[in-house]
Amino acid sequence: MKKVAVIMGSESDFKVVSSAVDCLKKFEIPFEVHIMSAHRTPEKVSNFAKNAEDNGFGIIIAAAGKAAHLAGVIAGHTTLPVIGIPVKGSALDGMDALFSTVQMPKGIPVATVAIDGAENAAILAAQILSLSCPALADKLKAEREKMKETIETQDKNIQVNI
Amino acid sequence: MKKVAVIMGSESDFKVVSSAVDCLKKFEIPFEVHIMSAHRTPEKVSNFAKNAEDNGFGIIIAAAGKAAHLAGVIAGHTTLPVIGIPVKGSALDGMDALFSTVQMPKGIPVATVAIDGAENAAILAAQILSLSCPALADKLKAEREKMKETIETQDKNIQVNI
Amino acid sequence: MKKVAVIMGSESDFKVVSSAVDCLKKFEIPFEVHIMSAHRTPEKVSNFAKNAEDNGFGIIIAAAGKAAHLAGVIAGHTTLPVIGIPVKGSALDGMDALFSTVQMPKGIPVATVAIDGAENAAILAAQILSLSCPALADKLKAEREKMKETIETQDKNIQVNI
Amino acid sequence: MKKVAVIMGSESDFKVVSSAVDCLKKFEIPFEVHIMSAHRTPEKVSNFAKNAEDNGFGIIIAAAGKAAHLAGVIAGHTTLPVIGIPVKGSALDGMDALFSTVQMPKGIPVATVAIDGAENAAILAAQILSLSCPALADKLKAEREKMKETIETQDKNIQVNI
Amino acid sequence: MKKVAVIMGSESDFKVVSSAVDCLKKFEIPFEVHIMSAHRTPEKVSNFAKNAEDNGFGIIIAAAGKAAHLAGVIAGHTTLPVIGIPVKGSALDGMDALFSTVQMPKGIPVATVAIDGAENAAILAAQILSLSCPALADKLKAEREKMKETIETQDKNIQVNI
Amino acid sequence: MKKVAVIMGSESDFKVVSSAVDCLKKFEIPFEVHIMSAHRTPEKVSNFAKNAEDNGFGIIIAAAGKAAHLAGVIAGHTTLPVIGIPVKGSALDGMDALFSTVQMPKGIPVATVAIDGAENAAILAAQILSLSCPALADKLKAEREKMKETIETQDKNIQVNI
Amino acid sequence: MKKVAVIMGSESDFKVVSSAVDCLKKFEIPFEVHIMSAHRTPEKVSNFAKNAEDNGFGIIIAAAGKAAHLAGVIAGHTTLPVIGIPVKGSALDGMDALFSTVQMPKGIPVATVAIDGAENAAILAAQILSLSCPALADKLKAEREKMKETIETQDKNIQVNI
Amino acid sequence: MKKVAVIMGSESDFKVVSSAVDCLKKFEIPFEVHIMSAHRTPEKVSNFAKNAEDNGFGIIIAAAGKAAHLAGVIAGHTTLPVIGIPVKGSALDGMDALFSTVQMPKGIPVATVAIDGAENAAILAAQILSLSCPALADKLKAEREKMKETIETQDKNIQVNI
Repeated sequence: MKKVAVIMGSESDFKVVSSAVDCLKKFEIPFEVHIMSAHRTPEKVSNFAKNAEDNGFGIIIAAAGKAAHLAGVIAGHTTLPVIGIPVKGSALDGMDALFSTVQMPKGIPVATVAIDGAENAAILAAQILSLSCPALADKLKAEREKMKETIETQDKNIQVNI
Repeated sequence: MKKVAVIMGSESDFKVVSSAVDCLKKFEIPFEVHIMSAHRTPEKVSNFAKNAEDNGFGIIIAAAGKAAHLAGVIAGHTTLPVIGIPVKGSALDGMDALFSTVQMPKGIPVATVAIDGAENAAILAAQILSLSCPALADKLKAEREKMKETIETQDKNIQVNI
Repeated sequence: MKKVAVIMGSESDFKVVSSAVDCLKKFEIPFEVHIMSAHRTPEKVSNFAKNAEDNGFGIIIAAAGKAAHLAGVIAGHTTLPVIGIPVKGSALDGMDALFSTVQMPKGIPVATVAIDGAENAAILAAQILSLSCPALADKLKAEREKMKETIETQDKNIQVNI
Repeated sequence: MKKVAVIMGSESDFKVVSSAVDCLKKFEIPFEVHIMSAHRTPEKVSNFAKNAEDNGFGIIIAAAGKAAHLAGVIAGHTTLPVIGIPVKGSALDGMDALFSTVQMPKGIPVATVAIDGAENAAILAAQILSLSCPALADKLKAEREKMKETIETQDKNIQVNI
Repeated sequence: MKKVAVIMGSESDFKVVSSAVDCLKKFEIPFEVHIMSAHRTPEKVSNFAKNAEDNGFGIIIAAAGKAAHLAGVIAGHTTLPVIGIPVKGSALDGMDALFSTVQMPKGIPVATVAIDGAENAAILAAQILSLSCPALADKLKAEREKMKETIETQDKNIQVNI
Repeated sequence: MKKVAVIMGSESDFKVVSSAVDCLKKFEIPFEVHIMSAHRTPEKVSNFAKNAEDNGFGIIIAAAGKAAHLAGVIAGHTTLPVIGIPVKGSALDGMDALFSTVQMPKGIPVATVAIDGAENAAILAAQILSLSCPALADKLKAEREKMKETIETQDKNIQVNI
Repeated sequence: MKKVAVIMGSESDFKVVSSAVDCLKKFEIPFEVHIMSAHRTPEKVSNFAKNAEDNGFGIIIAAAGKAAHLAGVIAGHTTLPVIGIPVKGSALDGMDALFSTVQMPKGIPVATVAIDGAENAAILAAQILSLSCPALADKLKAEREKMKETIETQDKNIQVNI
Repeated sequence: MKKVAVIMGSESDFKVVSSAVDCLKKFEIPFEVHIMSAHRTPEKVSNFAKNAEDNGFGIIIAAAGKAAHLAGVIAGHTTLPVIGIPVKGSALDGMDALFSTVQMPKGIPVATVAIDGAENAAILAAQILSLSCPALADKLKAEREKMKETIETQDKNIQVNI
């Protein structure tokens, strides 16, 4: 199976990104995690993105806050699908990162998930990889079933408390 | 190759969605276009989504405006990747559709593109399908080259005009 | 009297929703509380909504955060009045849930109350039911009188403190 | 059947409100239309609201733009359900009217519909009245069926055009 | 000198409003403080506003949060100048109260100050009253001088710390 | 009676400001109109503001768009009441001018009216001046009566059209 | 004198950018104009930025809309001052481009001007270059004088029209 | 080398501004820090700005919150480049200060950095001064190298933790 790259702009983003890592592990999807910045290490980013396909990656997840250019910049260097996680910062309540990630120009899409939605980024990656991996598709469906059961249980429990 | 479904909430969305259709044609990706509404034809939507995988679809693109629930509702009925296009309506300048499409809860991602970004939705679908189709990957790379050439030409032309 | 359904998307919404429950109890309105998710348990939601009228419900209150589709999805499956409570999440200060709940398309209204306005959702339900229940109408009027008295008392108390 | 009042703040709002009137006519719901302003004719508004129940009204729909106080002020004078239509003005893209209508304080709800969502306000009124009028409930269900058929037809037509 | 009325929608607003009271005391401007709600005690509000001029008031300051109708409703019942203080609530970061206070329709102005800007509301009242009270004008100018001195001192102090 | 100054940042603002001028004429309030810019003619602005009181002005109305500093800068140079009109520009739908005008720091209020609310600025000025001019107070009350009659007439006319 | 580079993301931005070009011509500042895209021609951008200093540039002005990454990406490849012009697009009223341009992370500033503020970008460039070019400083001061005279003339003209 | 002025509107802004001071020290750029307010000490501000060039300043950095006029007012009194730092206040999440700082009218630019982006303001000042100071340019490049190394180290460390 192709690898998923999980890229974040700085060490501090890991508190958001870690749930993506946990999710990829759960689905047994091979992955690599890297810290690199569109602005502070631009060449590292472009080299990584340009060679990602040759290096066995199928999908790149990128998380960044504020003027969150990371996902878009990576998307400009590869035709692999790029998933963007807007990270909420200390001002503007995540709106800056969301707009900077999702409002990409014609020709270069970034598949954007919710603000701080790292787990969903990993699930989306799994959904994409599952198109050519029935076993992964089965895991995704099983996971959905678990979610349903969790909510069924919550629904039962709340009956007791009211 | 798996088919792409392009779903829109009403006939009036087609002026936005048509560029996705044109793009899928250009890439020779098999597709179907449907009008169905998360609120006005909910069963049609859930039936379509639940059976999409069995019916040969690999990706579902959904376009909707205002409280744009269409992509999210579809995503709740399938583990195929779902791409959401927020459509700008007559108020709030597209912000309502963007937030309604992208801010999905944990477990059910929607890969959101820019407001009215239908062409990018199609390109993202192509990128996803290209993971198991090298010919499509080549087309995407060729398309990128064309974009570069267009901009090179624009850059040359503007030198003359200044 | 017809029952009121109080639906929330996840257990964590109960801290907001509980004031609606308290209010319904105060007005002695029969009700049921359920946890079900438009995205994680879509069939449970559509089954509930489609059968709500036959099961003795007159009004459905739905609370959800982020891309809050729950109220809208329920509204698509019933012609009972649906009241939506947008729940404030960790980003965007409640604006995402508000827009996702209120900006419904032509044909499928959701009666939206303030962000986290669970008590008002219950009062609105009581107002609706009171149209065919004069005793409930009297309780609502009595409650209004109490509010007035509370404010009169506050006004008196503040005179002392200034 | 109880009457529906349709109140607007100025003559110019009628271009938005007229679709509510058309809808009430279609459902054969008795109604009255009035122009009165929370700020320019406050006594007319409070008199109307205080006497609405005695005058045979069951629901009050109020449409206003900018600092849209009309629905909230009416709601303060009656325990009838009040439906608010935020009207988009020349600035702020409807956000001012939406916030002013929906963000009501504890105790006094306004059932808010989408910006310029006059038709949905009328449908919501019909849904409320249908709780004690099975014939109206049937009309609402028939209308839903028509919506479905419209979309089915649109879906068929678009197949031809692609 | 005419009195200033300081009106707030609920006891909880006093933590914001108290700085207005302190400021009026400092300027020795006669004032009254009242708690009354545009929605919960509408008649108290309209009675107060209609009789304010006869009762010796020259200016009414009104503070409210969320769908902050209080200042606007008062302004509809008097031709005295009304000053509105938008109070920040638990969602939307004060934007709802600001829009609801400032976006008044043609004919009925509310003199709006900053979100939670209670002290400035009192200063504005003092400025208005000073037009016919030179002694108060002198106090305002003296206060400005004090502000300047404070900043001069701060500027000196910071030189030491750098 | 003290004069009202109407200041605008550029000639192009006059299309908004003219309704303030018309209103002051209607109330027979003496006034002057000036074009001066907080940024392009700062000394003209500070000289005007510093000498306004001595030159017979009682109130200064200032209209500006974008980063609308004009009202705030004037307010820093005088203790006369300053009324700010935020003017909608070509981007951000008036939100920039509103925030720049209303969010003044502690000590220096600007009495802000609605976006493009020039007529209300003039009425507010009249209300302030009427505190020491009973004849003007009477005109304001007469004007209110006219508004009521206009709406009464509109209400009668709409009955015919429905 | 060092050259100014004026970069835009696509030909269509020239209608905004042209006023920057006109202004640079007026100040006789040497400049080059280029079309290149952070996403569609990323290598052209990074090559340009990395070599800009060696190629005689002192300042880079970059204009882009939507997820406006151009200025930020350039800033990551050079320590020359970079001036960003957010360009208003078809949705979100310029807010997306503004946030994407200005909210840069620690270490890599972009000097952002107003939405569509191309002329100001050029003036800012002139101000920067004037630090080591007294003749240019004189031109800037002369230009300021002209602005003042324009406004003085506007102020005189408006006296006639009132 | 010309001096940099760092101006803030009140003592409380120093917690944001101090990182600019630290950065200027690091680059050994001569600077002065002052507290002065566009509204409370307007003459101090205009005097400072008008004489800044003669007093040996090359750049003025101004930090302010809410209706952040400080940078714009300074820019109106000098043709030196002015850098604005919007400071986040207690409401509106920094949006008010950002809009008030960046949306300057034609003719008077303010080089705006991110909300609370004081360090970047200092770096931008250094970049501007480096145009005529190769030693400073070298320091800036060295600093960039350090950033790269920091991120490289972070990237290595995170490999261990996953």
